[in-house]
Amino acid sequence: MIFLNVLIVFAHPEPKSLNGALKDFAVQTLERKGNNVKVSDLNDMKFKANLDREDFLNQENEERFNPIMEQLHAAKTDSFASDIKAEMEKINWADLVIFQFPIWYGSLPAILKGWFERVFANGFSSDMFQGKIYENGFMTGKKAMLSFTTGGPEENYYREIPDKDPNKLLPVESESLKFSGFEVIQPFVIFNAIMLSEEDAEKNFEEYKDLLEKI
Amino acid sequence: MIFLNVLIVFAHPEPKSLNGALKDFAVQTLERKGNNVKVSDLNDMKFKANLDREDFLNQENEERFNPIMEQLHAAKTDSFASDIKAEMEKINWADLVIFQFPIWYGSLPAILKGWFERVFANGFSSDMFQGKIYENGFMTGKKAMLSFTTGGPEENYYREIPDKDPNKLLPVESESLKFSGFEVIQPFVIFNAIMLSEEDAEKNFEEYKDLLEKI
Repeated sequence: MIFLNVLIVFAHPEPKSLNGALKDFAVQTLERKGNNVKVSDLNDMKFKANLDREDFLNQENEERFNPIMEQLHAAKTDSFASDIKAEMEKINWADLVIFQFPIWYGSLPAILKGWFERVFANGFSSDMFQGKIYENGFMTGKKAMLSFTTGGPEENYYREIPDKDPNKLLPVESESLKFSGFEVIQPFVIFNAIMLSEEDAEKNFEEYKDLLEKI
Repeated sequence: MIFLNVLIVFAHPEPKSLNGALKDFAVQTLERKGNNVKVSDLNDMKFKANLDREDFLNQENEERFNPIMEQLHAAKTDSFASDIKAEMEKINWADLVIFQFPIWYGSLPAILKGWFERVFANGFSSDMFQGKIYENGFMTGKKAMLSFTTGGPEENYYREIPDKDPNKLLPVESESLKFSGFEVIQPFVIFNAIMLSEEDAEKNFEEYKDLLEKI
């Protein structure tokens, strides 16, 4: 029996939402099996989404702010802002990172996109100038899973994916994770969340349980 | 001669960046031709990216926060937070909205994604429950243009687009605009911005000038 360290990055402003319920359910299901779980509840943390100068405690170039260069410099000099460092430490600890979020306008909520931009920094998650990408990325050996809900029905999302392979949903987000070396496992998706019946919800939670217990 | 009202939504933390230069250049080029231009410099405004309860001055349901329902309610009762309302007024004024931004992790910077989520609210830009989407969306009659830079080379972005049609880049973002009724015109793209030579930069700015003058 192998126990995992699991970080759940949760991005929905309402804890009582379907996304909130899925996050709580994952915590319970994973802990019941003996795994260790930490949660980053981004809205509760009022996580800063905007990447800017304030992210860098020891700026390399105060005249002209270049995000990539400052991130590489901060990674070398251990000078990221404390909220970024706290997230990086959780990632370093984790064997598996689960992202729980609703699809808003076709992609990640801004608060979660900002988490990627600030925490998944150049020099921390990958370093393209040193070839530390994909199988050489700094996240190699870790797994990532996208767990998300959509407002629209399934057809909308599978229009261009005739084989209905859920791994092909959110290609941009999956690619960002792979770029850093993560193994991206099959996502868990609840479509049409606005219209979800209680019966379907129950089925979905059962399915999610099976998925989580197989990891 | 028709003069346009143009809103430029600018999302880069450094005014002296290539994106900043493109924004300034667009302002000058458009104004020289007699158009009226307003700029929303999101980083300078420290624009709030996170959609949450604070966006709604008159919450319909204080027990359980549902972003879509609160947006529809705020649109009906004219009760969006003032920073959102200010942006909505600029959009109402504009015939053309230009978005100037770098691609970060394959999509919009979080600060701009947050602008979409908060300002392009349900009930303001579209209303899916009333069929006010696409050609019936509330943005019908307006044009939108994506102007962006990429860190990676052209090949990365056209790998899945053999005909190299720039209109097929950023399909998620284009779709969000079309969903609200915008006519999305051809984007302006500078690839490989990190490695851009001065000579190529000059060519790019000439090309952008031609594009802007044709709108």
